[in-house]
Amino acid sequence: MKKLGLIHEGKSMKVYGTDDPERIVLEYKDDLTDNTGWRIGTVPGKGALNNSITNHLMRVLERNGIHTQYIEELTDRETLVRRAEMIPLEVIVRNVAAGRMAQRFGLQPGTSLRNTVLEYTFKSDELGDPEVNDQHILAMGWTDSATLKEIEREALKINDILRRYMRSVDIELVDIKLEFGRDGQGRLMLGDEISPDTCRFWDMRSQEKLDRDRVENTSIKDLPIIYERIAERLLEMDGR
Amino acid sequence: MKKLGLIHEGKSMKVYGTDDPERIVLEYKDDLTDNTGWRIGTVPGKGALNNSITNHLMRVLERNGIHTQYIEELTDRETLVRRAEMIPLEVIVRNVAAGRMAQRFGLQPGTSLRNTVLEYTFKSDELGDPEVNDQHILAMGWTDSATLKEIEREALKINDILRRYMRSVDIELVDIKLEFGRDGQGRLMLGDEISPDTCRFWDMRSQEKLDRDRVENTSIKDLPIIYERIAERLLEMDGR
Repeated sequence: MKKLGLIHEGKSMKVYGTDDPERIVLEYKDDLTDNTGWRIGTVPGKGALNNSITNHLMRVLERNGIHTQYIEELTDRETLVRRAEMIPLEVIVRNVAAGRMAQRFGLQPGTSLRNTVLEYTFKSDELGDPEVNDQHILAMGWTDSATLKEIEREALKINDILRRYMRSVDIELVDIKLEFGRDGQGRLMLGDEISPDTCRFWDMRSQEKLDRDRVENTSIKDLPIIYERIAERLLEMDGR
Repeated sequence: MKKLGLIHEGKSMKVYGTDDPERIVLEYKDDLTDNTGWRIGTVPGKGALNNSITNHLMRVLERNGIHTQYIEELTDRETLVRRAEMIPLEVIVRNVAAGRMAQRFGLQPGTSLRNTVLEYTFKSDELGDPEVNDQHILAMGWTDSATLKEIEREALKINDILRRYMRSVDIELVDIKLEFGRDGQGRLMLGDEISPDTCRFWDMRSQEKLDRDRVENTSIKDLPIIYERIAERLLEMDGR
């Protein structure tokens, strides 16, 4: 496999082509952006940690029957993945109220919910990633009804697997953002990253936040230490 | 039937009790509020026009098998209705992109949609009536899953009846806001008003807006004339 030129640069990663048209290389960056996509700063080592956390969790999902983009970790910040036709939606799965949902409904962050909540946002920097409902998605033609049902089923399955897995190392998966695409064979596939930048992880031992929300209370300089703690905790499990 | 004391004062109407615990009197006010509920001013005659437009459309719906709160128009601004346990949701049905939806998705107002879109907002002045999806509603316990399905079916039926009816007098029903409750027997029932304050009506003859959006381009002093045109147009149909 030969790494070729840059195809796309996103907020948290660069994407490179390879000599196989169905495979690409993701290179994780150290940049940190806020909820509106604005770059807050650089967090040395974050890219490598998110690469390793994402790959670890993608392997957990693969072992549990989820089709993901993951193929092989190449270097500390580069991973070979399947190329996908991405669906322009962010799928947010919430187990516990936090962030925007808590704010919007006047709930104390940490309030448990009667049922797992799915939210969608339309990926558009120009429009500010607006939140949308099922019917907006179909009316705008961002995907079809069968795919939306498939995404919903898959997102809930992924959330269940990861929530159970994280709990076994005393981390509460508060919420998680997922992105899906279709691989070369047209099969639905989990893409993007799964990291403290895209999930809320709360430590059930210390009640601390082990994700990017920590920036609210501390300096972004502390983030590498926080992200390292998540990475270490995940490996605890594998050591057993 | 004897009208008793004030039970509640809303943005557009006052609600009075009667000597029958299952019946109340709505009294339409002339106040106009903006989308955030802020009172913009008083529009003399608006209350009476909205009373008559709402009652006219409620009668159309009743004739078409919809269960509404409407019982009897008492005076030019007072109507006797069934008392309901209201569900704290606004149900917005959109046939054509306009207002918040057009803005959010960068669409030209008037863009037609592949399918009718339903949106919900949670009625809360404190939280600013946030838009919510089905899963938020269930997770927050604002209603149950069976009722939500029933509301969806009923809202689409109401939209179909009114859209067809309005088209017969050359008015496009762009969108409509509905509120539902349960009557004394526990039956789902349409409540609130149906007026140029809660719908977008576009004149298919002149392309003019015949609703509160007119305030964007003209003075609120013109509103009574606009609302009168809607009322007259509706009566055209009955004259035939």
